[in-house]
Amino acid sequence: MITAKVIGAGGYGGVGIVELLLRHPEVQLTTLVAQADVGMSMSTLYPHLTGFCDLPILPPDHPDASAAADVVFFATPDGVAMRQARAELEQGAKVIDYSGDFRFRTPEQYADYATRIGRDPKHVAPDLLPESVYGLAELHRTALTTDTRLVGNVGCFAIGCILGLAPALRFDLVDRGSLICDCKTGVSGAGKKPGPSFHYPSRYDHMNAYRLTGHQHVIEVEREMSALSGDDVALTFTPQVVPACRGILSCIYGTLNDGMDIETVWAAYREFHKDNHFVRLFNRDQPIGTQHVRGSNYCFLTIDIDDRTRRLRVISHIDNLMKGQAGNALQNMNLICGFPEHLGLHQPGQYP
Amino acid sequence: MITAKVIGAGGYGGVGIVELLLRHPEVQLTTLVAQADVGMSMSTLYPHLTGFCDLPILPPDHPDASAAADVVFFATPDGVAMRQARAELEQGAKVIDYSGDFRFRTPEQYADYATRIGRDPKHVAPDLLPESVYGLAELHRTALTTDTRLVGNVGCFAIGCILGLAPALRFDLVDRGSLICDCKTGVSGAGKKPGPSFHYPSRYDHMNAYRLTGHQHVIEVEREMSALSGDDVALTFTPQVVPACRGILSCIYGTLNDGMDIETVWAAYREFHKDNHFVRLFNRDQPIGTQHVRGSNYCFLTIDIDDRTRRLRVISHIDNLMKGQAGNALQNMNLICGFPEHLGLHQPGQYP
Amino acid sequence: MITAKVIGAGGYGGVGIVELLLRHPEVQLTTLVAQADVGMSMSTLYPHLTGFCDLPILPPDHPDASAAADVVFFATPDGVAMRQARAELEQGAKVIDYSGDFRFRTPEQYADYATRIGRDPKHVAPDLLPESVYGLAELHRTALTTDTRLVGNVGCFAIGCILGLAPALRFDLVDRGSLICDCKTGVSGAGKKPGPSFHYPSRYDHMNAYRLTGHQHVIEVEREMSALSGDDVALTFTPQVVPACRGILSCIYGTLNDGMDIETVWAAYREFHKDNHFVRLFNRDQPIGTQHVRGSNYCFLTIDIDDRTRRLRVISHIDNLMKGQAGNALQNMNLICGFPEHLGLHQPGQYP
Amino acid sequence: MITAKVIGAGGYGGVGIVELLLRHPEVQLTTLVAQADVGMSMSTLYPHLTGFCDLPILPPDHPDASAAADVVFFATPDGVAMRQARAELEQGAKVIDYSGDFRFRTPEQYADYATRIGRDPKHVAPDLLPESVYGLAELHRTALTTDTRLVGNVGCFAIGCILGLAPALRFDLVDRGSLICDCKTGVSGAGKKPGPSFHYPSRYDHMNAYRLTGHQHVIEVEREMSALSGDDVALTFTPQVVPACRGILSCIYGTLNDGMDIETVWAAYREFHKDNHFVRLFNRDQPIGTQHVRGSNYCFLTIDIDDRTRRLRVISHIDNLMKGQAGNALQNMNLICGFPEHLGLHQPGQYP
Repeated sequence: MITAKVIGAGGYGGVGIVELLLRHPEVQLTTLVAQADVGMSMSTLYPHLTGFCDLPILPPDHPDASAAADVVFFATPDGVAMRQARAELEQGAKVIDYSGDFRFRTPEQYADYATRIGRDPKHVAPDLLPESVYGLAELHRTALTTDTRLVGNVGCFAIGCILGLAPALRFDLVDRGSLICDCKTGVSGAGKKPGPSFHYPSRYDHMNAYRLTGHQHVIEVEREMSALSGDDVALTFTPQVVPACRGILSCIYGTLNDGMDIETVWAAYREFHKDNHFVRLFNRDQPIGTQHVRGSNYCFLTIDIDDRTRRLRVISHIDNLMKGQAGNALQNMNLICGFPEHLGLHQPGQYP
Repeated sequence: MITAKVIGAGGYGGVGIVELLLRHPEVQLTTLVAQADVGMSMSTLYPHLTGFCDLPILPPDHPDASAAADVVFFATPDGVAMRQARAELEQGAKVIDYSGDFRFRTPEQYADYATRIGRDPKHVAPDLLPESVYGLAELHRTALTTDTRLVGNVGCFAIGCILGLAPALRFDLVDRGSLICDCKTGVSGAGKKPGPSFHYPSRYDHMNAYRLTGHQHVIEVEREMSALSGDDVALTFTPQVVPACRGILSCIYGTLNDGMDIETVWAAYREFHKDNHFVRLFNRDQPIGTQHVRGSNYCFLTIDIDDRTRRLRVISHIDNLMKGQAGNALQNMNLICGFPEHLGLHQPGQYP
Repeated sequence: MITAKVIGAGGYGGVGIVELLLRHPEVQLTTLVAQADVGMSMSTLYPHLTGFCDLPILPPDHPDASAAADVVFFATPDGVAMRQARAELEQGAKVIDYSGDFRFRTPEQYADYATRIGRDPKHVAPDLLPESVYGLAELHRTALTTDTRLVGNVGCFAIGCILGLAPALRFDLVDRGSLICDCKTGVSGAGKKPGPSFHYPSRYDHMNAYRLTGHQHVIEVEREMSALSGDDVALTFTPQVVPACRGILSCIYGTLNDGMDIETVWAAYREFHKDNHFVRLFNRDQPIGTQHVRGSNYCFLTIDIDDRTRRLRVISHIDNLMKGQAGNALQNMNLICGFPEHLGLHQPGQYP
Repeated sequence: MITAKVIGAGGYGGVGIVELLLRHPEVQLTTLVAQADVGMSMSTLYPHLTGFCDLPILPPDHPDASAAADVVFFATPDGVAMRQARAELEQGAKVIDYSGDFRFRTPEQYADYATRIGRDPKHVAPDLLPESVYGLAELHRTALTTDTRLVGNVGCFAIGCILGLAPALRFDLVDRGSLICDCKTGVSGAGKKPGPSFHYPSRYDHMNAYRLTGHQHVIEVEREMSALSGDDVALTFTPQVVPACRGILSCIYGTLNDGMDIETVWAAYREFHKDNHFVRLFNRDQPIGTQHVRGSNYCFLTIDIDDRTRRLRVISHIDNLMKGQAGNALQNMNLICGFPEHLGLHQPGQYP
């Protein structure tokens, strides 16, 4: 049994990991910290947790907020973990951060990312970057060991795209210059904070593309694809919001290289994902959609090629709050704490 | 470890109990039976169950469909269990039926019910009725023992109303002639079968009342309330559908008897529900809604009185597919199989 | 052709009246004023109006904001019109206010209302109150004449309840002490301002009751019902929000007086509403819901009695932004400007 | 004033054109025909039309169903108009068909289309094909004259893609082999008939791609693009359904040819659409989505290029039931009947 602390407990990423930790057999949730909603209990803020998690939400400067825990989740926006992770690490904790703060292992890479999202390009804890691990077990499982102390959890759009693209790049199925990711997310991806674009009346029968100038998650995807293919990869990425709560549907396109056909494509995807418990492959005749991964940590990939245009088309389905956030974070925790990778996660969602 | 069979596995009631049984530590799901979608596996029909429940869906006349199981759930409409329960009971099974077939202990009561819903008033297994138990632990826990073989699970609207009304009738808080239940359900209450009124475009921004001539669940509510109050109770019941998937919000009104005030009301509700794990009480300042019981077996009751009009107002929130159906069925199973009442059910839903 | 100014143009009430004025054959929209979003055009704020209404949104202190218009709509919250109406009236305008500022004709009545909603009970323009008219043509058509200068538009919940209750009180069909209004509104009733309770993820599968301590619109309903019945009327009112955008479904209950039956009820409703173009009556076998009044100025009433409990049950359906707000305001404008009552409003919504 | 008949009046395409004809100043709706729901009035089927359109819905074999009208809309699926159009034409009517029956001018082209959708490749009225006109004013306005008797209205996905792609092909902005259309539709695009995939509970939080083997509308898009570019064009097309009622959001991608930049792109789009009243152009900084065309006949195009990948990205927004169906049909009617192109259509939708 290990202890866990959640920083940023009040947001969707916070409540998501709290829900998962409550049902995990090897973790005891001991401390909740947040900047807003402090002074109330978690179950006052989230009444569905009444009787399940009545811990108080502590402000960061509360003495109990700095109590040691075996694992600390930073369910916080960019800029928080880079400031606070060191203190947790020094107390012996393992740290898993949701933000971009520890997704990059060099200050230069971080600066690129930070610049793109309009933040100070200078990382405040550059010495920690080299030991951070990109928290994507499907590609970096061997780096996520009990020696790992610091994990940068993957961005929600990024993880759906990476899992769908990786075999194609790894096995050179497609032209690296032809990649397009057309991604549709439910509204919960924008978090708990109300805003004009997520107000029910302005969202309920509305779809729109946004951040066409560049979404921050593209950098991660391109870096991972470049690493897999051994060459620089740039891709077109179009984030969109649709009137759903949970789910990311990513349509991934790439022009097939010569000699590639549906058999070679399937062989590549089967091979790449053969040990990935949370990835399932489907063909285009199976009617898969986001509701089938809703509430679970699974990524469902539909593998298809468009013969007429010689194009690979992979459709990736995840729950943005699970495989796209808290679920993936727990998967990382399992690995770096020495538990079975799918402990507490081997569960389907509820339908409908 | 006991074995379970689900008849009517393909509907929402079927998939609901399958999901719950998969996570129950003492039950092994062995047989799925349905009339539609036969020949495919459960996970082909419900892809979210891929790898969790790949059992075939057997037609009723398949030899394996009649294999014995320790507990059999009839997730079927009226008229099925009354025909098939005997065979299961004779094989030693305990039977839990979702429909109205075994909610009444005399042929006369059943005939009343059947007439109201336009069915043949003659029950085909009248000799089984006396041993059936109305599956509502909160009122009839002592009758749900390991000796019980046959349970009639409560109607979805009925359970929300009964839990909200029972203390008022038991402790004579309100005028028995003044009761109104104004009930709003999500669309999943209508089941899996598509129809014009549940087609997305005709439902998405639409609320309507229906069956104003009389909903079948009223009979159960009136019978239970009559039993509690010791006198005949008739009430006005207005079922409505709103554009949500899960949830029933019931507003329950009754004119307070002389001498009753908010303190006597609270005392009555606290006393009545003090041993009911799945009922939680809230006051009107706590912002409760159906999303807070979504995916869980809890009933949240907001207790309020309108001083100006001397009226009790109780707002009852359930998930129609959990406490209103599969969750309550599992709670019944736990009791009649000798497990802790909340085994496999002590879990909150996922938010948002 | 008359000219119109809209103050508070940026909110849902503002854009609603702008849309209606654009298609009205006798009105030219000349001035838009708001406190937020100033400096942009109406069509930048509401892109669907591109090419239809590209007028600038002026701040209140802009010189052009005080230009004279024949009719001025205050699509503003409480407290604005009482401060600014006089200046408009003095310029010769007719004024129609959406808020509670001019729904009451005496400072005492206003004080009651203001106290209930937590505002200063002192009206800042008490001398204007006696000439204000409650803007409900169906009850006060004869008071809405070309001599009328100042109209207090009805509250959205109030209008649905009043139209459904009025015949019952006018013709003494029900016990005045037995009235309950159970009202469900779509989210647009809360206006354009984002908030936690209207954030898409926290609203999409969520129903809840709110303001159980008392909603401000009750006062209007009670006043009108008291006037019709000649005696004080108090009623229980339960506002609820459901995951829809537009629509209010109000279930109205009252215990029938002796001698009243479905025929006397129908006779009363037909008589009362015989000249009310925007009210249509239906019986309980007609499948009516809020989608059928969506986008139009109609109120659809389902007339029913529950024989078993001797209770009148009227189900009232309106579009909260049309008959509940802008549509009704335009209807008032037509009357006080001498146009046919339904000019520019005789149009159904779009389905689905 | 001309008279109009609607065949297939009971579906969404039927009620859509009925709504539009009711507000058109030069048309009188005289006859409604359908195969289902016959014997009831239009307003019984669609209660929002009560008092606006109470015409009976006639079965095709009713004597009055064959009454002559000046214009006849076939709001019917494939195979109906090809059988019945001749009789209407011979009575002097102009015919506008929603289906694919008259979108192709040669039996060979039709056979290609019919084969793809699994229908008999043999057209039953091949002699009518040469005089049919593809009903897309933005590309074929000069062919839509008062001499035109027979129009094949454009497919809903096709029209959004064509309007977004046409300038790029016409002005050779992009590589013809690089085109991808990633298209998301609301559920109303599937019509009024209930089905498992459009049942509210299985759709409300669900996105999915479908018909990956080939959607019938692709043929139209490719034919039009081939004609504009002077060479065969094949493109990848991915239809998706999202939980909305109305709206199609199409993301259109193509690799820019050498020398093309954002200025040349804008010049091309401005030039191509300069006379197209119902097409509006926006840049990527303007927050446009489907709600802004909801209920109107407009197509909003966001013009963008992704500099890093040298790719054109156009985002096309339409209301699938308006510009994608009934609205475009009325626009065609205006042209072939000699009315101003936007008569009865120059109206924004209602927001929100």
